[in-house]
This record gives sequence, C-alpha cells and structure tokens, in this order.
Amino acid sequence: MPELRLNLITREWVIIATERAKRPEDFKISVSKKALPYYVETCPFCPGNETKTPVELFRTGDKNGWKVRVVPNKFAAVSDSGSRERKIDGIRRSVTGVGVHEVIIESPRHNTNPALLSSEQMEEVIKVYKNRFLKAYTDPRVEHVIVFKNHGEGAGTSLEHPHSQLIGTPVMPVQFRDRLEAAAHFFDDMGECLMCVLARKEKEEGVRVVAETEHFLSFVPYAALSPFHTWIFPKRHSASFSDIADAEIKDLALSLKSILSKLYHGLVNPDYNFVIRSNKPKDCDLEYFHWYISIIPRLTRAAGFELGSGMYINTSLPEESAEFLRKVQTT
Amino acid sequence: MPELRLNLITREWVIIATERAKRPEDFKISVSKKALPYYVETCPFCPGNETKTPVELFRTGDKNGWKVRVVPNKFAAVSDSGSRERKIDGIRRSVTGVGVHEVIIESPRHNTNPALLSSEQMEEVIKVYKNRFLKAYTDPRVEHVIVFKNHGEGAGTSLEHPHSQLIGTPVMPVQFRDRLEAAAHFFDDMGECLMCVLARKEKEEGVRVVAETEHFLSFVPYAALSPFHTWIFPKRHSASFSDIADAEIKDLALSLKSILSKLYHGLVNPDYNFVIRSNKPKDCDLEYFHWYISIIPRLTRAAGFELGSGMYINTSLPEESAEFLRKVQTT
Repeated sequence: MPELRLNLITREWVIIATERAKRPEDFKISVSKKALPYYVETCPFCPGNETKTPVELFRTGDKNGWKVRVVPNKFAAVSDSGSRERKIDGIRRSVTGVGVHEVIIESPRHNTNPALLSSEQMEEVIKVYKNRFLKAYTDPRVEHVIVFKNHGEGAGTSLEHPHSQLIGTPVMPVQFRDRLEAAAHFFDDMGECLMCVLARKEKEEGVRVVAETEHFLSFVPYAALSPFHTWIFPKRHSASFSDIADAEIKDLALSLKSILSKLYHGLVNPDYNFVIRSNKPKDCDLEYFHWYISIIPRLTRAAGFELGSGMYINTSLPEESAEFLRKVQTT
Repeated sequence: MPELRLNLITREWVIIATERAKRPEDFKISVSKKALPYYVETCPFCPGNETKTPVELFRTGDKNGWKVRVVPNKFAAVSDSGSRERKIDGIRRSVTGVGVHEVIIESPRHNTNPALLSSEQMEEVIKVYKNRFLKAYTDPRVEHVIVFKNHGEGAGTSLEHPHSQLIGTPVMPVQFRDRLEAAAHFFDDMGECLMCVLARKEKEEGVRVVAETEHFLSFVPYAALSPFHTWIFPKRHSASFSDIADAEIKDLALSLKSILSKLYHGLVNPDYNFVIRSNKPKDCDLEYFHWYISIIPRLTRAAGFELGSGMYINTSLPEESAEFLRKVQTT
C-alpha cells in the first residue's frame, strides 16, 4: 500500500507510491549522453572567450590561468542597476526587479562533469559560493540569496559548460519565510532546532543515510519528494551557509562530490538541480534554523496533481534509494 | 527592468523577467506533433478495449456507445482498498496511502484533441467531473480532491488518448490549507472574498482578460507564473466546484473550450496542465474562498531557482500573453 509521509521542513505530505514503484536500477538513464569536447570555440565560458561574457566580477587562479570565474548572467532575471521601489496600488503589490544574478563557472574545462571535479576544484567552487553569497548580501537591495545549480536540459539548462548560479532577490520568498516560521514553531514546541533533530534521527536510524563525513551527514529525506532526492546537512548548528569554516568547506567538497559521483555512476549522469537553503549572514546565530543543501535528480516530472496540490508523488522508496546510493562505488 | 509581482492567492512573488522576455509568437511549438489515428488497438481507452482497464466505475452514453468513461487508475497513487491509519512515531508522521484515483476518458476517439471536443462533449466531461468530485467526497477516507489534466509529455503524460484524472487524498494538502488561511485573512481585512475582488479588478482593468461568458471570466493572472498561465473564475461566489449549476456547466464548457482552443491554435498544440482548485462540497458556503480553474501551459521548465525559492520566473508579460490569446481566432 502507498504511504503518505510528512516533510517536517516544508510541512507538506509526499505520496510514496509503492504501487507505481520502480527499483532503483530502473531509473538509470538508458541513453548515454554525448561525449563533450575539452574546449568549444563558441562557448562563452571556455578560456580564451572571456570577452564573450559580461564584465568579470571575480576569479580565482594563478599565473597559469583562472580556476573559477564569476560573471553577471547575460540574461539576468533581476537587473543589477536601478533602485528597489515598492509599488502599492490598491490590491496590487509589485517591486522593481533589481538584485544580483551571477554565473559561477566551475572549471575552465568545458567537458568536466561536476561529479568528476577534483576535490580541490570542488573546494575552490564552494569557497567562491561563500564569497559571492556574502558579497550579494552587502547589496542593500537584496533581501534573500539562492545559490543553485541546474545540470542538464531536464533540470533547466542548455549550457554544457559546468556552472552554477546565484540570484539575490529584492524580496524574501514567501516559501522561505514559511519555512522559517515552521522551524520557529518547532523550536518553540520542542526546545530544539528541527534540522538538528532530523539529522540526529537520521543518523540513529541509519536506513536513509547515504554518506557521512566529519562535518556533514548526507541522507535521503524520510519524505523525499522524488527518487534519490538527497539532503546534505552540516552537523554543526548554524543558520547561514556564510558561517561555514575552512575545514568544513574542505569536508563539504568531499560530501558534495561523493553524492554527485554516486548519482553520476549509479544512474549514468542524470539531470539534477541542487540548491543551498540558507538564512542571511546577519541572522546566522538564529537558534531555530539550520542551513542545508538539497539535491534533486530530475528523473520524473511534476504534473497536474503536483501543481494542483503542492504534494509530490515519489515512485521510489526513500530507504531503497538510499541503499542503492550507499552501495555505488565511485572510485 | 524586470518586475516582481505578488500573487495574492499563493502569496508568492513572481519575477516577470522582461530582459529575458520573448514575444508571444516565440512560444509557438515549432515541431508539429504527429497526427494520431482515430483508433489504436493497444490503447486501453479506445472503444472495444474496455476489458483492458480496471473495472469501470461510471459511464455516460446511449445505445450507440459510451461518451465518457471513468475507470480506476491502473497505477494508482493511492489505493482504493484499506483503511486510513495515521502513524505518529516520535517526530515522524505518516498516513496509509488510501483514497481515490480515477481516470476520466473524455471521448471514445483516440485522436480528439481536448481543444477540439465539441461543446456538447466538453459539457458532458464537466458533468462527469462534478459527478465524480461529489462521489469522491462521499468516501470517508478522503480529505481533499484534485481534478486535473496532463496534456502531452511535457505535462507529465505519455498516454495520447484524451483523459483527465481525479485524486482524493487522505490528508488536506498543506498548500491548500495555506491558501484557505490566506483567503480568510484577506476576508477579515477587506470584508470581501479575495477571488471576487480579483475577478472584479481584472474585468475593470481589462488588459489581462482573455475571454468572458455569462458566468465565467478568463484572464491571465497579474502575477502569472508562466507564459499564458490562465485562470477561469466563476463570477458567482461559491467555494466549491460541486455547487456548479447546469447552466453554468454549459457555460464553463464554452469557456474552457475557448481557452484550450486559443492555446491549440495560437501556440500549436502546446503541452499543458489544468487543475480545478476547489474547497470540499460540504464547505461550499464558505464566504472567503472561491473555486476556480488554473491552466498552465508547459512552455518553460522550473529549475533550481524555482525549486529553491518557490518563486517563478516568467519570461513573458502577462498583458502581452493575454492580448495574444484574445486575438487568436478559433473558428
């Protein structure tokens, strides 16, 4: 029989549809994607083509060239110029679309799959995330920042060159405000941070744990919204990603690389998104919220039911997804 | 400059990304879909293949054959047998996945595009929606019912034969509860139903109106979450679809057919979902909620930003989408 499970962070139910369930192996991508070249002349993210992007904002590297580059998104969702103006007209509410929209180019090599980045390069990328995350919040027009990655067409990108993005919006997303509130109520009720409790519980039960490092626990959520949906939780309580220490960055690089490699090898390079869910730097001491990373492989498609109810139908058992990922050898 | 607009029903912001904006014509599907045959021997929804579906639940028609058929979904998200049992285990919450999951076969003809159904057939389909909607709520295990349609692979279906679905879940979706609450607060603040106010305002402003009939107003929402996103609002205040009168069904058939035809002719048969957002029959007199239909063409893809923030990026201007749809000739 199917089972509905409550996601305590979103407060939404997920239908674990065991009647429709596939075995983990059945989600493997059957058509192997085409091999990419090392360098593409027309790619704006390849070395030598730096003039094809808007003016560079940041880079790391040395005299041999850049390692990670940050540029404004050429097709920005929010504009980097102009002031933030609210308009209140009867029942209408609008705000000028100003803020930050950056692209983080993760490697000079066009054909590096993010799962196959070296640990050092992944660490470099996460350091740049932290740098740009902090920088975006210095813009007084920015209310909230999302760092995310779209990998593959099914995840919303047609660009092959490995990259992630950062968007700073001039408003707080209602979804995030709702989660803060839910977490605050949990704290009031239980006297503990919801995410601290969830991570401890997952570690105790073990059945959904995929990997563990010194500072991070990676697991498939109890109410995973889709097959192989994975959370990476820092063990140390902190409300903001901006608070991550150097040793933790090193460790997160290993954790993220481990999960992405398991997806890459186990499911044959599936499309996926990941997102860093974090509070703002100045509220990093908040006792009731805890930042984390959510990785969502795009193996199924949200349809009318999901749009109409906000509930997801997951055609895999979280415990089986976790066991499958745990067993994937990545070296 | 882009603009953020607040959707008063979901309370979420939408980024109207005019820098990325395409003209309405640019969303036309460029590859025309393959023509379908009238009848397919292996299709479980074609006449003559009735034994290939689970046991029929309902049909309309006459001695010449059925017009609309309702069958259980063979790959049900929730099971029709078993009892509803809550399990509360520490912080975990689960419910047995019981409820109703039906398929409404909209026509005996395999190759009838829903946009091209006759008004009489569309009326028949909506009558069946009402019948099954009411019936689903008689199941004491059912807390909430969603009637929806997935049209095309991009909208989550691989079945060609025109059909829609109904799912009755054993819990109230949190998303729906949140909307009820938001609507209640609006009523408390303003002394009027939010949806009544929205429809009146749209009619006054006119720029986003697509079509109007005696009983329904169709418009692109002010904060449309994607290109050509359209709402059909009943003019008469009622919290539940179950309350629709026969004359209104006739009129809704015209309204729905008009919007689907405009999408079909104007954008060349795009994939789309639609969903009836409605309160339960017994709460149809609620003064602060108002049922409606939301039609969402799937012309763009939600990516990491949408997953991570709950905010959508719409690459079209709602007023331009509405003007385009208004002008599409459907006869």
